[in-house]
Amino acid sequence: MPSKPGAVVLASGGMDSCVTTALAAQSFRLHMLHVNYGQRTERRELQAFHDIADHYHAKRRLVVDISHLKRIGGSSLTDASMKIEEGSPDPTRIPSTYVPFRNANLLSIAVSWAEVLGAEAVFVGAVEEDSSGYPDCRQSFFEAFQKVIETGTRNERPLRIYTPLLRMRKKDIVEKGMALHAPLRLTWSCYQREDIACGVCESCRLRLRGFEEAGFRDPIPYVSSQSFNAG
Amino acid sequence: MPSKPGAVVLASGGMDSCVTTALAAQSFRLHMLHVNYGQRTERRELQAFHDIADHYHAKRRLVVDISHLKRIGGSSLTDASMKIEEGSPDPTRIPSTYVPFRNANLLSIAVSWAEVLGAEAVFVGAVEEDSSGYPDCRQSFFEAFQKVIETGTRNERPLRIYTPLLRMRKKDIVEKGMALHAPLRLTWSCYQREDIACGVCESCRLRLRGFEEAGFRDPIPYVSSQSFNAG
Repeated sequence: MPSKPGAVVLASGGMDSCVTTALAAQSFRLHMLHVNYGQRTERRELQAFHDIADHYHAKRRLVVDISHLKRIGGSSLTDASMKIEEGSPDPTRIPSTYVPFRNANLLSIAVSWAEVLGAEAVFVGAVEEDSSGYPDCRQSFFEAFQKVIETGTRNERPLRIYTPLLRMRKKDIVEKGMALHAPLRLTWSCYQREDIACGVCESCRLRLRGFEEAGFRDPIPYVSSQSFNAG
Repeated sequence: MPSKPGAVVLASGGMDSCVTTALAAQSFRLHMLHVNYGQRTERRELQAFHDIADHYHAKRRLVVDISHLKRIGGSSLTDASMKIEEGSPDPTRIPSTYVPFRNANLLSIAVSWAEVLGAEAVFVGAVEEDSSGYPDCRQSFFEAFQKVIETGTRNERPLRIYTPLLRMRKKDIVEKGMALHAPLRLTWSCYQREDIACGVCESCRLRLRGFEEAGFRDPIPYVSSQSFNAG
Protein backbone atom coordinates (compact mmCIF):
# COMPACT_ATOMS: atom_id res chain seq x y z
CA MET A 1 0.00 0.00 0.00
CA PRO A 2 1.54 3.36 -0.95
CA SER A 3 2.00 5.73 1.99
CA LYS A 4 -0.48 8.55 2.40
CA PRO A 5 0.45 11.98 1.07
CA GLY A 6 1.61 14.51 3.66
CA ALA A 7 -0.45 17.35 5.11
CA VAL A 8 0.61 20.26 7.26
CA VAL A 9 -2.07 20.82 9.91
CA LEU A 10 -2.23 24.21 11.60
CA ALA A 11 -3.31 23.39 15.12
CA SER A 12 -3.84 25.87 17.93
CA GLY A 13 -4.85 23.19 20.39
CA GLY A 14 -8.49 24.22 20.39
CA MET A 15 -11.54 22.11 19.62
CA ASP A 16 -11.75 23.19 15.98
CA SER A 17 -8.16 22.31 15.21
CA CYS A 18 -8.57 18.97 17.00
CA VAL A 19 -11.54 18.02 14.80
CA THR A 20 -9.63 19.30 11.75
CA THR A 21 -6.72 17.04 12.72
CA ALA A 22 -9.09 14.09 13.02
CA LEU A 23 -10.40 14.80 9.52
CA ALA A 24 -6.92 15.22 8.03
CA ALA A 25 -5.75 11.98 9.63
CA GLN A 26 -8.27 10.03 7.57
CA SER A 27 -6.42 10.67 4.31
CA PHE A 28 -3.04 12.19 5.08
CA ARG A 29 0.18 11.69 7.02
CA LEU A 30 0.22 14.50 9.57
CA HIS A 31 2.85 17.22 10.02
CA MET A 32 1.65 19.31 12.92
CA LEU A 33 2.31 23.07 13.04
CA HIS A 34 1.63 25.30 16.04
CA VAL A 35 2.16 29.03 16.01
CA ASN A 36 2.49 31.21 19.09
CA TYR A 37 1.74 34.82 18.37
CA GLY A 38 1.82 36.24 21.87
CA GLN A 39 -1.75 35.32 22.67
CA ARG A 40 -2.64 35.28 26.36
CA THR A 41 -3.10 31.53 26.75
CA GLU A 42 -0.10 30.52 24.69
CA ARG A 43 1.41 28.10 27.23
CA ARG A 44 -1.80 26.15 27.73
CA GLU A 45 -2.51 25.99 24.00
CA LEU A 46 0.93 24.59 23.30
CA GLN A 47 0.34 21.80 25.81
CA ALA A 48 -2.96 20.98 24.12
CA PHE A 49 -1.22 20.97 20.72
CA HIS A 50 1.33 18.38 21.85
CA ASP A 51 -1.34 16.29 23.56
CA ILE A 52 -3.36 16.17 20.33
CA ALA A 53 -0.27 15.47 18.20
CA ASP A 54 0.67 12.64 20.58
CA HIS A 55 -2.82 11.20 20.29
CA TYR A 56 -2.45 11.05 16.51
CA HIS A 57 1.18 9.82 16.64
CA ALA A 58 2.33 12.80 14.57
CA LYS A 59 6.10 12.59 14.56
CA ARG A 60 6.97 15.72 12.68
CA ARG A 61 6.05 18.89 14.57
CA LEU A 62 7.02 22.51 14.19
CA VAL A 63 6.40 25.15 16.84
CA VAL A 64 6.95 28.67 15.61
CA ASP A 65 6.97 31.94 17.48
CA ILE A 66 5.68 35.03 15.70
CA SER A 67 5.32 37.26 18.71
CA HIS A 68 5.99 40.23 16.42
CA LEU A 69 2.22 40.11 15.88
CA LYS A 70 1.98 41.06 19.54
CA ARG A 71 4.46 43.89 19.04
CA ILE A 72 2.45 45.05 16.02
CA GLY A 73 -0.61 45.04 18.25
CA GLY A 74 -4.17 45.91 17.38
CA SER A 75 -5.84 42.97 19.13
CA SER A 76 -7.17 42.25 22.61
CA LEU A 77 -5.94 38.69 22.15
CA THR A 78 -2.35 39.82 22.38
CA ASP A 79 -2.67 43.13 24.24
CA ALA A 80 -3.49 42.67 27.92
CA SER A 81 -4.52 46.33 28.22
CA MET A 82 -7.47 45.77 25.86
CA LYS A 83 -10.63 44.14 27.15
CA ILE A 84 -11.86 40.89 25.60
CA GLU A 85 -15.59 41.04 24.94
CA GLU A 86 -17.70 38.67 27.00
CA GLY A 87 -20.90 37.08 25.78
CA SER A 88 -21.96 36.37 22.25
CA PRO A 89 -20.24 38.17 19.39
CA ASP A 90 -21.94 41.09 17.69
CA PRO A 91 -22.15 40.03 14.03
CA THR A 92 -22.11 43.60 12.77
CA ARG A 93 -18.54 44.42 13.75
CA ILE A 94 -15.04 42.98 13.89
CA PRO A 95 -14.33 41.71 17.44
CA SER A 96 -11.43 43.18 19.42
CA THR A 97 -9.84 39.72 19.40
CA TYR A 98 -9.17 40.00 15.66
CA VAL A 99 -5.40 39.82 15.09
CA PRO A 100 -4.79 41.75 11.86
CA PHE A 101 -4.11 39.43 8.94
CA ARG A 102 -3.18 36.61 11.30
CA ASN A 103 -4.31 33.80 9.05
CA ALA A 104 -2.16 35.02 6.16
CA ASN A 105 0.85 34.88 8.48
CA LEU A 106 -0.06 31.36 9.63
CA LEU A 107 -0.75 30.07 6.13
CA SER A 108 2.50 31.50 4.80
CA ILE A 109 4.50 29.54 7.38
CA ALA A 110 2.46 26.41 6.70
CA VAL A 111 3.02 26.69 2.95
CA SER A 112 6.78 27.28 3.34
CA TRP A 113 6.98 24.11 5.41
CA ALA A 114 4.67 22.13 3.13
CA GLU A 115 6.80 23.10 0.14
CA VAL A 116 10.00 21.83 1.76
CA LEU A 117 8.31 18.62 2.96
CA GLY A 118 6.61 17.98 -0.36
CA ALA A 119 3.23 17.90 1.38
CA GLU A 120 0.09 18.15 -0.74
CA ALA A 121 -2.28 19.77 1.73
CA VAL A 122 -2.49 22.47 4.36
CA PHE A 123 -5.35 22.06 6.83
CA VAL A 124 -6.68 24.92 8.87
CA GLY A 125 -9.62 24.78 11.27
CA ALA A 126 -11.06 28.19 10.51
CA VAL A 127 -14.79 28.59 11.10
CA GLU A 128 -16.85 31.41 9.68
CA GLU A 129 -19.63 31.25 12.27
CA ASP A 130 -17.60 32.06 15.36
CA SER A 131 -15.53 34.66 13.59
CA SER A 132 -17.92 36.18 11.13
CA GLY A 133 -16.27 39.48 11.79
CA TYR A 134 -12.75 38.24 11.07
CA PRO A 135 -12.02 39.06 7.44
CA ASP A 136 -9.30 36.41 7.23
CA CYS A 137 -11.75 33.62 8.11
CA ARG A 138 -13.90 33.98 5.02
CA GLN A 139 -14.12 31.60 2.10
CA SER A 140 -13.06 34.36 -0.29
CA PHE A 141 -9.86 34.90 1.68
CA PHE A 142 -8.89 31.23 1.50
CA GLU A 143 -9.70 31.09 -2.22
CA ALA A 144 -7.49 34.11 -2.83
CA PHE A 145 -4.70 32.51 -0.79
CA GLN A 146 -4.96 29.35 -2.87
CA LYS A 147 -4.10 31.47 -5.91
CA VAL A 148 -1.10 32.88 -4.08
CA ILE A 149 0.12 29.33 -3.53
CA GLU A 150 -0.32 28.51 -7.19
CA THR A 151 1.60 31.58 -8.34
CA GLY A 152 4.21 31.77 -5.58
CA THR A 153 5.53 28.25 -4.97
CA ARG A 154 7.60 25.79 -6.97
CA ASN A 155 4.34 24.03 -7.68
CA GLU A 156 6.03 20.73 -8.41
CA ARG A 157 3.02 18.96 -6.98
CA PRO A 158 -0.44 20.24 -6.12
CA LEU A 159 -0.73 21.97 -2.74
CA ARG A 160 -4.24 22.68 -1.56
CA ILE A 161 -5.68 24.52 1.42
CA TYR A 162 -8.41 22.56 3.20
CA THR A 163 -10.83 24.32 5.54
CA PRO A 164 -13.24 21.48 6.34
CA LEU A 165 -15.01 23.32 9.17
CA LEU A 166 -15.43 26.65 7.44
CA ARG A 167 -19.18 26.42 6.94
CA MET A 168 -19.95 24.26 9.97
CA ARG A 169 -21.73 25.40 13.12
CA LYS A 170 -20.19 24.63 16.50
CA LYS A 171 -22.89 22.01 17.10
CA ASP A 172 -21.86 20.17 13.93
CA ILE A 173 -18.19 20.40 14.87
CA VAL A 174 -18.90 18.79 18.25
CA GLU A 175 -20.90 16.04 16.55
CA LYS A 176 -18.19 15.45 13.96
CA GLY A 177 -15.55 15.32 16.69
CA MET A 178 -17.54 12.80 18.70
CA ALA A 179 -18.17 10.66 15.61
CA LEU A 180 -14.44 10.58 14.80
CA HIS A 181 -13.44 9.97 18.43
CA ALA A 182 -11.39 13.16 18.38
CA PRO A 183 -9.79 13.70 21.81
CA LEU A 184 -11.77 16.82 22.72
CA ARG A 185 -10.82 16.36 26.40
CA LEU A 186 -7.28 17.37 25.43
CA THR A 187 -8.24 20.65 23.77
CA TRP A 188 -8.14 24.24 25.05
CA SER A 189 -10.33 27.03 23.72
CA CYS A 190 -10.53 29.68 26.45
CA TYR A 191 -9.11 33.08 25.48
CA GLN A 192 -8.59 34.26 29.05
CA ARG A 193 -7.40 31.55 31.43
CA GLU A 194 -4.91 28.70 31.41
CA ASP A 195 -5.98 26.64 34.42
CA ILE A 196 -9.76 26.23 34.22
CA ALA A 197 -11.73 27.63 31.29
CA CYS A 198 -13.53 30.88 32.16
CA GLY A 199 -16.81 29.92 30.53
CA VAL A 200 -17.67 33.52 29.67
CA CYS A 201 -15.30 34.72 26.92
CA GLU A 202 -16.54 34.57 23.31
CA SER A 203 -14.64 31.39 22.64
CA CYS A 204 -15.91 29.53 25.74
CA ARG A 205 -19.49 30.64 25.08
CA LEU A 206 -19.46 29.40 21.51
CA ARG A 207 -17.92 26.11 22.53
CA LEU A 208 -20.32 25.52 25.41
CA ARG A 209 -23.31 26.34 23.25
CA GLY A 210 -22.04 23.89 20.61
CA PHE A 211 -21.85 21.07 23.15
CA GLU A 212 -25.25 21.99 24.56
CA GLU A 213 -26.92 21.98 21.15
CA ALA A 214 -25.26 18.72 20.20
CA GLY A 215 -26.43 17.17 23.46
CA PHE A 216 -23.00 16.27 24.82
CA ARG A 217 -21.16 17.27 27.96
CA ASP A 218 -17.99 19.29 27.36
CA PRO A 219 -15.24 17.14 28.94
CA ILE A 220 -13.02 20.05 30.07
CA PRO A 221 -13.55 21.85 33.41
CA TYR A 222 -15.09 25.34 33.67
CA VAL A 223 -14.93 27.89 36.46
CA SER A 224 -18.68 27.99 36.90
CA SER A 225 -21.03 25.20 36.01
CA GLN A 226 -23.65 27.90 35.41
CA SER A 227 -21.78 28.86 32.28
CA PHE A 228 -23.06 25.68 30.73
CA ASN A 229 -26.46 27.18 30.30
CA ALA A 230 -25.41 30.78 29.95
CA GLY A 231 -25.17 30.83 26.17
CA MET B 1 -0.59 70.79 3.62
CA PRO B 2 -2.07 67.44 4.63
CA SER B 3 0.47 64.88 5.77
CA LYS B 4 1.43 62.16 3.35
CA PRO B 5 -0.23 58.76 3.68
CA GLY B 6 1.81 56.05 5.35
CA ALA B 7 3.67 53.24 3.62
CA VAL B 8 5.32 50.17 5.07
CA VAL B 9 8.57 49.59 3.19
CA LEU B 10 10.11 46.11 3.31
CA ALA B 11 13.83 46.77 3.28
CA SER B 12 16.56 44.17 3.40
CA GLY B 13 19.32 46.74 3.26
CA GLY B 14 20.26 45.87 -0.30
CA MET B 15 20.47 48.14 -3.33
CA ASP B 16 16.99 47.29 -4.58
CA SER B 17 15.28 48.05 -1.29
CA CYS B 18 17.25 51.30 -1.02
CA VAL B 19 16.00 52.50 -4.41
CA THR B 20 12.50 51.32 -3.49
CA THR B 21 12.72 53.39 -0.29
CA ALA B 22 13.78 56.41 -2.33
CA LEU B 23 10.76 55.97 -4.60
CA ALA B 24 8.34 55.46 -1.67
CA ALA B 25 9.69 58.56 0.08
CA GLN B 26 8.51 60.73 -2.80
CA SER B 27 4.82 60.21 -1.96
CA PHE B 28 4.56 58.48 1.42
CA ARG B 29 5.55 58.73 5.06
CA LEU B 30 7.89 55.80 5.64
CA HIS B 31 7.48 52.97 8.13
CA MET B 32 10.50 50.75 7.68
CA LEU B 33 10.28 46.98 8.12
CA HIS B 34 13.23 44.62 8.17
CA VAL B 35 12.91 40.87 8.45
CA ASN B 36 15.68 38.49 9.48
CA TYR B 37 15.07 34.97 8.35
CA GLY B 38 18.34 33.37 9.33
CA GLN B 39 20.14 34.36 6.15
CA ARG B 40 23.92 34.24 6.33
CA THR B 41 24.57 37.98 6.19
CA GLU B 42 21.81 38.99 8.57
CA ARG B 43 23.91 41.19 10.85
CA ARG B 44 25.38 43.25 8.01
CA GLU B 45 22.01 43.65 6.32
CA LEU B 46 20.44 44.94 9.52
CA GLN B 47 23.12 47.60 9.79
CA ALA B 48 22.44 48.67 6.21
CA PHE B 49 18.71 48.78 6.95
CA HIS B 50 19.20 51.19 9.86
CA ASP B 51 21.66 53.31 7.88
CA ILE B 52 19.13 53.69 5.06
CA ALA B 53 16.25 54.37 7.50
CA ASP B 54 18.40 57.03 9.22
CA HIS B 55 19.14 58.62 5.86
CA TYR B 56 15.41 58.97 5.18
CA HIS B 57 14.59 60.02 8.77
CA ALA B 58 12.16 57.11 9.13
CA LYS B 59 11.11 57.18 12.77
CA ARG B 60 8.95 54.12 12.91
CA ARG B 61 10.89 50.90 12.36
CA LEU B 62 10.11 47.27 12.99
CA VAL B 63 12.70 44.51 12.97
CA VAL B 64 11.21 41.03 12.97
CA ASP B 65 12.87 37.66 13.30
CA ILE B 66 11.39 34.74 11.40
CA SER B 67 14.28 32.36 11.74
CA HIS B 68 11.77 29.49 11.59
CA LEU B 69 12.30 29.81 7.82
CA LYS B 70 15.84 28.67 8.54
CA ARG B 71 14.54 25.76 10.63
CA ILE B 72 12.15 24.88 7.81
CA GLY B 73 15.15 24.89 5.49
CA GLY B 74 15.28 24.21 1.79
CA SER B 75 17.54 27.12 0.82
CA SER B 76 21.27 27.69 0.53
CA LEU B 77 20.65 31.23 1.76
CA THR B 78 19.83 29.93 5.22
CA ASP B 79 21.58 26.56 5.23
CA ALA B 80 25.37 26.82 5.47
CA SER B 81 25.76 23.20 4.37
CA MET B 82 24.34 24.03 0.93
CA LYS B 83 26.51 25.72 -1.67
CA ILE B 84 25.52 29.11 -3.09
CA GLU B 85 25.92 29.17 -6.86
CA GLU B 86 28.58 31.48 -8.20
CA GLY B 87 28.37 33.24 -11.53
CA SER B 88 25.28 34.23 -13.48
CA PRO B 89 21.99 32.52 -12.67
CA ASP B 90 20.71 29.77 -14.94
CA PRO B 91 17.31 31.05 -16.12
CA THR B 92 15.92 27.55 -16.60
CA ARG B 93 15.83 26.51 -12.96
CA ILE B 94 15.07 27.79 -9.46
CA PRO B 95 18.32 28.84 -7.74
CA SER B 96 19.36 27.15 -4.49
CA THR B 97 19.03 30.54 -2.77
CA TYR B 98 15.24 30.43 -3.16
CA VAL B 99 13.65 30.46 0.31
CA PRO B 100 10.30 28.69 -0.09
CA PHE B 101 7.40 31.16 -0.10
CA ARG B 102 9.54 33.78 1.59
CA ASN B 103 7.82 36.78 0.04
CA ALA B 104 4.40 35.63 1.26
CA ASN B 105 5.79 35.50 4.79
CA LEU B 106 7.30 38.98 4.43
CA LEU B 107 4.20 40.51 2.88
CA SER B 108 1.95 39.02 5.56
CA ILE B 109 3.95 40.73 8.29
CA ALA B 110 4.01 43.99 6.33
CA VAL B 111 0.24 43.90 5.81
CA SER B 112 -0.46 43.11 9.50
CA TRP B 113 1.61 46.15 10.45
CA ALA B 114 0.13 48.36 7.72
CA GLU B 115 -3.36 47.48 8.88
CA VAL B 116 -2.63 48.50 12.47
CA LEU B 117 -0.89 51.71 11.37
CA GLY B 118 -3.57 52.61 8.85
CA ALA B 119 -0.96 52.74 6.10
CA GLU B 120 -2.13 52.74 2.49
CA ALA B 121 0.82 51.09 0.81
CA VAL B 122 3.30 48.27 1.17
CA PHE B 123 6.49 48.66 -0.87
CA VAL B 124 8.70 45.75 -1.77
CA GLY B 125 11.82 45.88 -3.92
CA ALA B 126 11.34 42.59 -5.71
CA VAL B 127 12.94 42.31 -9.16
CA GLU B 128 12.02 39.67 -11.69
CA GLU B 129 15.28 39.81 -13.65
CA ASP B 130 17.65 38.74 -10.91
CA SER B 131 15.28 36.14 -9.57
CA SER B 132 13.53 34.86 -12.64
CA GLY B 133 13.53 31.46 -11.04
CA TYR B 134 11.91 32.58 -7.77
CA PRO B 135 8.21 31.94 -8.11
CA ASP B 136 7.36 34.49 -5.40
CA CYS B 137 8.99 37.32 -7.34
CA ARG B 138 6.61 37.24 -10.29
CA GLN B 139 3.97 39.79 -11.16
CA SER B 140 1.26 37.12 -10.96
CA PHE B 141 2.25 36.34 -7.36
CA PHE B 142 1.95 39.97 -6.28
CA GLU B 143 -1.37 40.35 -8.07
CA ALA B 144 -2.70 37.28 -6.28
CA PHE B 145 -1.46 38.62 -2.96
CA GLN B 146 -3.24 41.91 -3.61
CA LYS B 147 -6.51 39.94 -3.73
CA VAL B 148 -5.63 38.29 -0.42
CA ILE B 149 -5.29 41.76 1.10
CA GLU B 150 -8.64 42.81 -0.30
CA THR B 151 -10.41 39.74 1.07
CA GLY B 152 -8.49 39.27 4.32
CA THR B 153 -8.12 42.68 5.96
CA ARG B 154 -10.50 45.17 7.52
CA ASN B 155 -10.19 47.07 4.30
CA GLU B 156 -11.23 50.34 5.91
CA ARG B 157 -8.92 52.15 3.54
CA PRO B 158 -7.21 50.98 0.38
CA LEU B 159 -3.98 49.08 0.93
CA ARG B 160 -1.90 48.45 -2.15
CA ILE B 161 1.28 46.53 -2.82
CA TYR B 162 3.83 48.49 -4.84
CA THR B 163 6.67 46.71 -6.63
CA PRO B 164 8.22 49.60 -8.56
CA LEU B 165 11.36 47.68 -9.59
CA LEU B 166 9.68 44.48 -10.67
CA ARG B 167 10.27 44.91 -14.39
CA MET B 168 13.46 46.93 -14.16
CA ARG B 169 16.91 45.67 -15.07
CA LYS B 170 19.77 46.20 -12.62
CA LYS B 171 21.20 48.88 -14.90
CA ASP B 172 17.95 50.84 -14.69
CA ILE B 173 17.84 50.41 -10.91
CA VAL B 174 21.34 51.86 -10.57
CA GLU B 175 20.38 54.77 -12.81
CA LYS B 176 17.16 55.40 -10.89
CA GLY B 177 19.04 55.26 -7.59
CA MET B 178 21.64 57.76 -8.81
CA ALA B 179 18.94 60.09 -10.15
CA LEU B 180 17.12 60.04 -6.80
CA HIS B 181 20.35 60.41 -4.79
CA ALA B 182 19.59 57.14 -3.01
CA PRO B 183 22.44 56.35 -0.56
CA LEU B 184 23.73 53.27 -2.39
CA ARG B 185 27.00 53.50 -0.44
CA LEU B 186 25.06 52.38 2.64
CA THR B 187 23.60 49.22 1.09
CA TRP B 188 24.66 45.57 1.31
CA SER B 189 23.87 42.95 -1.33
CA CYS B 190 26.45 40.15 -0.90
CA TYR B 191 24.96 36.77 0.00
CA GLN B 192 28.20 35.35 1.41
CA ARG B 193 30.27 37.86 3.34
CA GLU B 194 29.66 40.61 5.88
CA ASP B 195 32.94 42.55 5.83
CA ILE B 196 33.80 43.14 2.18
CA ALA B 197 31.50 41.99 -0.63
CA CYS B 198 32.71 38.78 -2.28
CA GLY B 199 32.08 39.95 -5.84
CA VAL B 200 31.34 36.45 -7.10
CA CYS B 201 27.99 35.31 -5.66
CA GLU B 202 24.89 35.71 -7.83
CA SER B 203 23.85 38.85 -6.01
CA CYS B 204 27.25 40.57 -6.27
CA ARG B 205 27.56 39.66 -9.95
CA LEU B 206 24.19 41.11 -10.83
CA ARG B 207 24.89 44.26 -8.88
CA LEU B 208 28.34 44.78 -10.38
CA ARG B 209 27.05 44.23 -13.88
CA GLY B 210 24.28 46.74 -13.24
CA PHE B 211 26.77 49.42 -12.20
CA GLU B 212 29.04 48.59 -15.12
CA GLU B 213 26.22 48.85 -17.68
CA ALA B 214 24.98 52.08 -16.14
CA GLY B 215 28.51 53.51 -16.30
CA PHE B 216 28.86 54.20 -12.57
CA ARG B 217 31.33 52.95 -10.01
CA ASP B 218 29.81 50.82 -7.23
CA PRO B 219 30.64 52.74 -4.03
CA ILE B 220 31.00 49.68 -1.78
CA PRO B 221 34.28 47.72 -1.47
CA TYR B 222 34.82 44.28 -3.04
CA VAL B 223 37.35 41.58 -2.27
CA SER B 224 38.80 41.64 -5.73
CA SER B 225 38.71 44.54 -8.12
CA GLN B 226 38.73 41.98 -10.94
CA SER B 227 35.17 41.11 -10.02
CA PHE B 228 34.15 44.41 -11.51
CA ASN B 229 34.62 43.08 -15.01
CA ALA B 230 33.84 39.47 -14.29
CA GLY B 231 30.12 39.65 -15.11
